[in-house]
Amino acid sequence: MSKLIESTPKKDGFRMPGEFEPHAGTYIIWPERPDNWRLGGKPAQKVFAEVANTIAKYEPVTVCVNKNQYCNAKQHLNPEVRVVEMSNDDSWIRDCGATFVVNKDGLMRGVDWTFNAWGGLVDGLYFPWDQDDLVARKMCELENADRYRTEGFILEGGSIHTDGEGTLMVTEECLLSEGRNADMTKKQIEKKLCDYLGVKKVLWIKEGIYNDETNGHVDNMCNFVRPGVVALAWTEDKKDPQYKRSMEAYKYLSKETDAKGRKLEIHKILTPSPVLITKEESLGVDAVEGTLPRQEGDRLAASYVNYYTGNGFVAVPVFDDPHDKLAIEELQKLYPDRVIEPIYAREILLGGGNIHCITQQVPKNINNE
Amino acid sequence: MSKLIESTPKKDGFRMPGEFEPHAGTYIIWPERPDNWRLGGKPAQKVFAEVANTIAKYEPVTVCVNKNQYCNAKQHLNPEVRVVEMSNDDSWIRDCGATFVVNKDGLMRGVDWTFNAWGGLVDGLYFPWDQDDLVARKMCELENADRYRTEGFILEGGSIHTDGEGTLMVTEECLLSEGRNADMTKKQIEKKLCDYLGVKKVLWIKEGIYNDETNGHVDNMCNFVRPGVVALAWTEDKKDPQYKRSMEAYKYLSKETDAKGRKLEIHKILTPSPVLITKEESLGVDAVEGTLPRQEGDRLAASYVNYYTGNGFVAVPVFDDPHDKLAIEELQKLYPDRVIEPIYAREILLGGGNIHCITQQVPKNINNE
Repeated sequence: MSKLIESTPKKDGFRMPGEFEPHAGTYIIWPERPDNWRLGGKPAQKVFAEVANTIAKYEPVTVCVNKNQYCNAKQHLNPEVRVVEMSNDDSWIRDCGATFVVNKDGLMRGVDWTFNAWGGLVDGLYFPWDQDDLVARKMCELENADRYRTEGFILEGGSIHTDGEGTLMVTEECLLSEGRNADMTKKQIEKKLCDYLGVKKVLWIKEGIYNDETNGHVDNMCNFVRPGVVALAWTEDKKDPQYKRSMEAYKYLSKETDAKGRKLEIHKILTPSPVLITKEESLGVDAVEGTLPRQEGDRLAASYVNYYTGNGFVAVPVFDDPHDKLAIEELQKLYPDRVIEPIYAREILLGGGNIHCITQQVPKNINNE
Repeated sequence: MSKLIESTPKKDGFRMPGEFEPHAGTYIIWPERPDNWRLGGKPAQKVFAEVANTIAKYEPVTVCVNKNQYCNAKQHLNPEVRVVEMSNDDSWIRDCGATFVVNKDGLMRGVDWTFNAWGGLVDGLYFPWDQDDLVARKMCELENADRYRTEGFILEGGSIHTDGEGTLMVTEECLLSEGRNADMTKKQIEKKLCDYLGVKKVLWIKEGIYNDETNGHVDNMCNFVRPGVVALAWTEDKKDPQYKRSMEAYKYLSKETDAKGRKLEIHKILTPSPVLITKEESLGVDAVEGTLPRQEGDRLAASYVNYYTGNGFVAVPVFDDPHDKLAIEELQKLYPDRVIEPIYAREILLGGGNIHCITQQVPKNINNE
């Protein structure tokens, strides 16, 4: 059961919790589309299954799958993982899934953003995206959560990060992009964010990770470790186009305060060395008109900051790179009470995102427990 | 989450509860196939929605729907009804759905019978039936119930009725049919039933309702009102081919005892006058090779006994027939503590079954509540 609510979370006293707050569980979508995932998605499926099975050690996991892959998905997933049918156009539930908000009475509702595949007919990554746009609605049904729908306001979950205490981080590169809400001013967009996420202050970082096909989603660039503490993707290589982006974000965040007036503590996480698509990897992907091509030599938007935080764990993408060890150590320091779970995630990166992009948390309904 | 269990419910101490025992909820599948439901399923969808919305007044209802009808189904159903995507070949969840069994500790598991569309390539009603055969498995996933699979043993939920105290009613016409388990003896079939339903005694009624395309499912013919009490479809018209069938069942049940050694109290429920398909109804159905045709003048297997019992209610099909009133009165006497909910169900009957055929109960997990 799920009712459509003609109001806003802010009006109704709901807020989006920080990802680091307790979860009731995690949703993931099973990958398969052959024009994005090489070799019919088989290598990616192995890694998605590893992510799901890893998280399932810590909290309930639901994997959503198109009907033709139902039995195969079940085969790869541990019995603890719940598999449900849910049609989709691709497997980025962070972006097309519901953003859950909670109130003080422990009630949970879903925000169902309008989804247009990261830019619609302007610079979207595939067409059509109708099934993806129904994913949030279907998640609300499964969770018996009433639903806010932002008809006409385009947003993906990967383009926002909150501290759960009134502060939101986004990038201008993404939220002010031509393919999303080009008819709205920055101020109007900010009001929507405040209304639908129950936040008071939006931090506008200029750009995300270099060559990120999502128009620089914030979740690949920086994250709230906890209120007042931020992890930021970083490079010391001044010739890397990423340098300018990270430096700009660092300077901006350094002089800003959060919704509670706190200065931010910023921790730099060095990115891996540039990761390029190999010829073999490129040849495994169907070249289809209308879908972003995967070409040999293209630089992928690799970043450790695209990690996912859950009950007692942090799932971190690693790349068989010398920087892996450093990132793991740094994150262990930032999350002393959580197990760091490194997962070799090149196959997810090849599809255009990473562990944070393929997961979506359901907050724990504290007062209902 | 749902694990496949390599054992039997009997061995593990599980039994199928009577339908009249407390429910955790009801599952229904949304109808749409145009070669079975007239006018693209639109008239049937109205009635299915009425059934779902009615039951939702008494207990949680989940409606399973193919992806293309998801939004339309949601439109017709009250917000209290949970709508989930679940691919299917048609909408008879009584038959393709899971049969849930429980144990003394309040644990629930699902029995996932092999389904072959009421007779497979011998006299099945459509082809293919692969998505229907996955429905039970998907229900178990949604309910987080571990699962027994009877690979190679064909059965539909509408072909069994239990008193929850060790007794099962079936028809020979169905269970010994050529299209199901022709390679098994009656004794072998009986053992399967006992093993998978935790029953001790099987009552073998000879035949079901005349011209019932399911090969005479017992759920259209008779039902356990409670242990020791049976409702039986009846006619006083000796020229009606139904007369012989009902009389034979009456005589058989009259001399039998149940698993606890009780004589059965039998209540006759008069069937409506013969219901025939009209020309207009016939013309609304796509005539497709391989699917049972719906021809003008064909007699439908109309019976009030195809009612569904839930928490505090009995949903009864009515046909705008003089016998409706009698059936309602009789059932109200048999179920003094439940609200009788009559639903005009000709559109369900036109598809080949009735309210009991389109519903499947999830028993209440008593000890877990």
